[in-house]
Amino acid sequence: MSTPFQTTRRVEFGDTDMAGIVHFANFFRYMEAAETDFLRARGLSVAWQHGGQRYGFPRVSAACDWVRPVRFADVLTIAVTVEKVGRKSVSYRHDFALEGEPVATGRVTAVFCLKGPNGELESADIPPDVRAALES
Amino acid sequence: MSTPFQTTRRVEFGDTDMAGIVHFANFFRYMEAAETDFLRARGLSVAWQHGGQRYGFPRVSAACDWVRPVRFADVLTIAVTVEKVGRKSVSYRHDFALEGEPVATGRVTAVFCLKGPNGELESADIPPDVRAALES
Amino acid sequence: MSTPFQTTRRVEFGDTDMAGIVHFANFFRYMEAAETDFLRARGLSVAWQHGGQRYGFPRVSAACDWVRPVRFADVLTIAVTVEKVGRKSVSYRHDFALEGEPVATGRVTAVFCLKGPNGELESADIPPDVRAALES
Amino acid sequence: MSTPFQTTRRVEFGDTDMAGIVHFANFFRYMEAAETDFLRARGLSVAWQHGGQRYGFPRVSAACDWVRPVRFADVLTIAVTVEKVGRKSVSYRHDFALEGEPVATGRVTAVFCLKGPNGELESADIPPDVRAALES
Repeated sequence: MSTPFQTTRRVEFGDTDMAGIVHFANFFRYMEAAETDFLRARGLSVAWQHGGQRYGFPRVSAACDWVRPVRFADVLTIAVTVEKVGRKSVSYRHDFALEGEPVATGRVTAVFCLKGPNGELESADIPPDVRAALES
Repeated sequence: MSTPFQTTRRVEFGDTDMAGIVHFANFFRYMEAAETDFLRARGLSVAWQHGGQRYGFPRVSAACDWVRPVRFADVLTIAVTVEKVGRKSVSYRHDFALEGEPVATGRVTAVFCLKGPNGELESADIPPDVRAALES
Repeated sequence: MSTPFQTTRRVEFGDTDMAGIVHFANFFRYMEAAETDFLRARGLSVAWQHGGQRYGFPRVSAACDWVRPVRFADVLTIAVTVEKVGRKSVSYRHDFALEGEPVATGRVTAVFCLKGPNGELESADIPPDVRAALES
Repeated sequence: MSTPFQTTRRVEFGDTDMAGIVHFANFFRYMEAAETDFLRARGLSVAWQHGGQRYGFPRVSAACDWVRPVRFADVLTIAVTVEKVGRKSVSYRHDFALEGEPVATGRVTAVFCLKGPNGELESADIPPDVRAALES
């Protein structure tokens, strides 16, 4: 649906575990940060306020498959592709590579939500301008 | 393949994010800790040494779907089911519930590996005693 | 000022780093969770709502000194001592031990705050009932 | 002892907590990453191998004082100053600022260690070339 947006990330010491590789849960943080970079490049955010209303994109689904381990100080390339923009949700694919070799592929689906005064989250239709930015 | 093993976990303050809910990446940490509890109950571990050889179960696949958010101080019940024991890998399902209501379902596939002297990981056949413990 | 409250914590795989030991930043999470346990035992919390007002205890100072490393599956004992209750702040000491041997000592000072409707934090005098519970 | 090395860091969504601010424990990760950047600029690392021997700089002391909260998407400036190079240890100060205003000051002391074949850590004298790079 869109040309992949690309960002990079250097693995930090604290991202590793005693197996000497990046702990798998950190790839989900990497994906969220890459999504944030992607959204910022489109003038959007994963959490913002507008006209007194708070918005956000909590996740309803996330997955990752790894083909080889990544280590401290490795510099990952992360390509973010919008795979689908639904009425209330957006799905991304994240392709991780290291020196041109695939490392992992992740997928995340986030739902557009309004946040109420007591923190309750309610899903809502993605507004046209947000949709246009996601699909551009 | 097996009766679910069950464990509980109380959400910590640091597990939450600015949306006021548990940050999604932490569910993958919860799954790994639940798997560790499961393995310990079977006399196994996710990382151990035996006869000078180091073993481990790095993840090759992980996924989670959420049906509702979880908040600080909530006490989650996590049921761990072994879905498949392959020649070199094991697949788990993790069913998260809060006060009896489903919250999320996760899946993880880990590969049995030997760790070499320089930290390199090599997949290997799951030994019969480990297999028997996983399938029991 | 008070008899130490004691809690335990088993080190998780994801808490370790490539040095094979618990990553130092996790001790600060351990301290916060121990403080939460302590507060819960006194009927308090690190974050709560009452009468439409949100309260919290953000940290203004934290420190830790380590005397030996801690590893995966180690079960730490954490003794929480209230060292000082000021007008607006409370200071804790956390003594970490492993099988009776000291591992680390941490200190945290948290300030009592009200949280405004837009998330702004404002320090406030600790109410008498909270103070009494902390000092008991 | 040295002119401060400076690096920047953008706060990620997953770094925040339900108070809407960066969770305090993440500042210790920020410090380690800044130290890594500093060491890399000097041709060093927090963990490396040389001539079959593994080296590292585990922390023996870490502290941070905060003067105001930091939020999602804020871009922090982190100035790293080497405060002291001892026989076996090095002490850093980290000054965090946001748009020129001080946010937090942290201090970390790390000990030079050799890592044995079974993961045991042993402190050692800092070699002259490492010392020269730290003091330059």
